[in-house]
Amino acid sequence: MTFKDQLASVAAEVETTLEQLLRPSGTLTSGEPPLWEAMRYATLGGGKRLRAFLAVESAAMFDVDRTGALRAGAAVECLHAYSLVHDDLPAMDDDDLRRGKPTTHKAFDEAIAILAGDGLQTLAFEILADPATHADGTVRAELCLGLARAAGAPGMVGGQMIDIAAESAAEPFDLPTITMLQAKKTGALIRVSCEVGAILAQDADARKLLADYAEHLGLAFQIRDDLLDVEGDEETAGKRLQKDAEAGKATFVSILGVDGARKAAADEVDAANAALATFGDRAQWLREAAGFAINRIS
Amino acid sequence: MTFKDQLASVAAEVETTLEQLLRPSGTLTSGEPPLWEAMRYATLGGGKRLRAFLAVESAAMFDVDRTGALRAGAAVECLHAYSLVHDDLPAMDDDDLRRGKPTTHKAFDEAIAILAGDGLQTLAFEILADPATHADGTVRAELCLGLARAAGAPGMVGGQMIDIAAESAAEPFDLPTITMLQAKKTGALIRVSCEVGAILAQDADARKLLADYAEHLGLAFQIRDDLLDVEGDEETAGKRLQKDAEAGKATFVSILGVDGARKAAADEVDAANAALATFGDRAQWLREAAGFAINRIS
Repeated sequence: MTFKDQLASVAAEVETTLEQLLRPSGTLTSGEPPLWEAMRYATLGGGKRLRAFLAVESAAMFDVDRTGALRAGAAVECLHAYSLVHDDLPAMDDDDLRRGKPTTHKAFDEAIAILAGDGLQTLAFEILADPATHADGTVRAELCLGLARAAGAPGMVGGQMIDIAAESAAEPFDLPTITMLQAKKTGALIRVSCEVGAILAQDADARKLLADYAEHLGLAFQIRDDLLDVEGDEETAGKRLQKDAEAGKATFVSILGVDGARKAAADEVDAANAALATFGDRAQWLREAAGFAINRIS
Repeated sequence: MTFKDQLASVAAEVETTLEQLLRPSGTLTSGEPPLWEAMRYATLGGGKRLRAFLAVESAAMFDVDRTGALRAGAAVECLHAYSLVHDDLPAMDDDDLRRGKPTTHKAFDEAIAILAGDGLQTLAFEILADPATHADGTVRAELCLGLARAAGAPGMVGGQMIDIAAESAAEPFDLPTITMLQAKKTGALIRVSCEVGAILAQDADARKLLADYAEHLGLAFQIRDDLLDVEGDEETAGKRLQKDAEAGKATFVSILGVDGARKAAADEVDAANAALATFGDRAQWLREAAGFAINRIS
């Protein structure tokens, strides 16, 4: 099976899991249906599900229940979907297009988009804390703690804040600041996705190795994103490109140049794979995911 | 000690806990300080801390660690503060004043307010999932699950959605719909606050009784809110009043009349207290909280 087939196969399983989780359990009252429609619109039927893939494939290296891994992957996707809905809002990045469709506030309205994002964040924690994800409460609490640390002000939300500040900064950010921005804005969620397997398996040593892998993978992924922002095709990407250049923001490409960025991304992939060495063949899909991160066209 | 003294005393302890929790642990990068300032602005130095009081006093009925109870109370206050920040946004209720101060998006800006609300929601789960809240992972996961169910689309977020729909509804909502709206928008969070003690003590029977108490308390609290919206003083309330009447929205007062609403609130307090019967003197402060709910002037 090729990597793309495996990615699509896991994405289909995750989609089924999300489809079941994004259904209200009781009868809805006047006004509630658009909230659920917006949450489903923002989450279902789009995206590569790379974060869920990392969660599911890191779990597949250990002897853990697949249902729990799929639920954890779905939770990370809900968290990711919420972040996209809020980042696209007029007061934030003001984007009209996402995954080739109108953004949630365009398809519904701004109030519904804010609430749908809020509800998706809560749902992510509800899924992880539910006994259906893992029989051991300590594992469920650890999943919640890991996701919260990755997603909150010390992580993703802080990264988005740095990104917003970049637009009004006196001069473009330097490489250490861009690297910190990336580590928080996209890196933290990728990291906890990769840690999911070790958390479910309660293997602290493996968790450290997976975190190491994930930090390099996240960097490689972001550098490729910056390259695609310059070289990519808007139709393939399903979103507006070259925003950073227009906003005068520094990126890995503006600082390192195209060739330098390609080299840096390849170095990160090597470092990511080195962290997986002790896992041997079990880490095949994670290793291929690192290659995918720098070769993808969208 | 009077109820007001006890409420103020617990509020001071909760404030200290929140003050410690709302500090970044590492060095902040360019752009991040306003995020933390906004999170602190929205959470510290205001509010009666009724939800935290319910959490702390429900826990005080059992032999549980006070630090954990204060942390759980602080988590509920972070969740509550996030909901106020987002509800006040221009796309939602568009309010300029909250707790007598400019709302967060007025004091900072809209993007920061959205992110500060997002970060406060995440922080609530981070606090609950942290081993410092309770040594037993099952308890931590149960706290996360309880808060998530109360706060998400099936609870608070769904209630806010119904409330928004009320403005464009063909005719004012009837009593069952208003009651459902209240149960979700404010009742669910009050309920989980009251359940905190029983969750920390792992006492399933007590949890059912506290949930029963909380449902009646929440209704009494909301009916009093509707009465204050008509009869209250904006300066004492620290927020704009009579919004519901201006928007043509039904309230307990518009449906039941002032006297009928007063009677309904008193009946709810009786029912709330009845649910506490088996706790005897241990439930003194919760009993007084129910009385406070219908006699408060802000």
